[in-house]
Amino acid sequence: MHSSVSIPGYDYGTARVRRSPVTLDELRQIEQAAGFSEEDQHALQCAGEVLVEQAEQMVDSWRARIAAQPELARWFFDPSGKPDEAYKAAVKKRFVQWVRDTCMRPRDQAWLDYQEEIGLRHTPAKKNQTDSVHTPPVVPLRYLIAFVAVVNPIRPFLCREKRSAEEIEEMQNAWSKAVLIQISLWSRPYVKEGLW
Amino acid sequence: MHSSVSIPGYDYGTARVRRSPVTLDELRQIEQAAGFSEEDQHALQCAGEVLVEQAEQMVDSWRARIAAQPELARWFFDPSGKPDEAYKAAVKKRFVQWVRDTCMRPRDQAWLDYQEEIGLRHTPAKKNQTDSVHTPPVVPLRYLIAFVAVVNPIRPFLCREKRSAEEIEEMQNAWSKAVLIQISLWSRPYVKEGLW
Repeated sequence: MHSSVSIPGYDYGTARVRRSPVTLDELRQIEQAAGFSEEDQHALQCAGEVLVEQAEQMVDSWRARIAAQPELARWFFDPSGKPDEAYKAAVKKRFVQWVRDTCMRPRDQAWLDYQEEIGLRHTPAKKNQTDSVHTPPVVPLRYLIAFVAVVNPIRPFLCREKRSAEEIEEMQNAWSKAVLIQISLWSRPYVKEGLW
Repeated sequence: MHSSVSIPGYDYGTARVRRSPVTLDELRQIEQAAGFSEEDQHALQCAGEVLVEQAEQMVDSWRARIAAQPELARWFFDPSGKPDEAYKAAVKKRFVQWVRDTCMRPRDQAWLDYQEEIGLRHTPAKKNQTDSVHTPPVVPLRYLIAFVAVVNPIRPFLCREKRSAEEIEEMQNAWSKAVLIQISLWSRPYVKEGLW
């Protein structure tokens, strides 16, 4: 994971990430609402043992889906209406790292702070800023939520032949919860005062 | 499904539901972002054949999770700080119907309009209004999103002994997508102008 320090704009755990307005107690409540347990944390780490190596393939498969739908692809377009390839490449490295972090990082203050940062980077507050680009200023929340359905099914990546159906189900459920907890946190800067 | 006309406040397809500000074209884009296909629609209807009869048990299992977490339970409390049992009972009937509708209803204008209505009923715009109650004015979006992880796994209800693992997986994936598409739509009234 330490190779991640060389990813431009990957500011996890650095002073460039501001403290999240969400407290750790609030995070625990969100985790509890999602039913995220110690067992899920363990299952996620087990899943990570195989997912970390496949993280780029996973992201490539998701990216192919984005590229195939103009309404999703256009949030990566430059002002001329073409894909900003440098931006896509920069985001991709952090997206791959996100798979690793989702499985392997402890859910502490640094993790919570970076969730807020990721959320902000999808909104006008910070989108484009990290990479000094000029793509549209937001990824609409409706797509962020709907796209969970694409990022959710990880069974094809879990080397099913080596695990029991029960283990696979535990890993799948843990991953689903972990993604939803993050989308919940990322939605914060999108939401009207008092409704988040 | 026609017994549903007797559920108080269940205004699906009636003049009491305003037209959604979301267009059918926008709905199709959200469905596409979630990867929702004709095959998913079919798998959902097949799932519905067994889920419709178990809808109340499903809701009871989810409700037990809500009741067990004070931070989720309190959105059903009356001003004295106790659960508003009449409100809970009224919402429950509609929640059970929601399981049926998720599997069986076509995704047309009436369906889209009612998604907006459900979203509004979780926000200050319409929460409490339908049932003339005095519970807190909002269910925070962070819990609505996180709780998808609880509503998501339907395998235990799918009579697994009667179906192939592949059929079960198709139904599970179709259900997951259908839920996320709805949460995406329900999030609309929560979100700041231009960010949804």
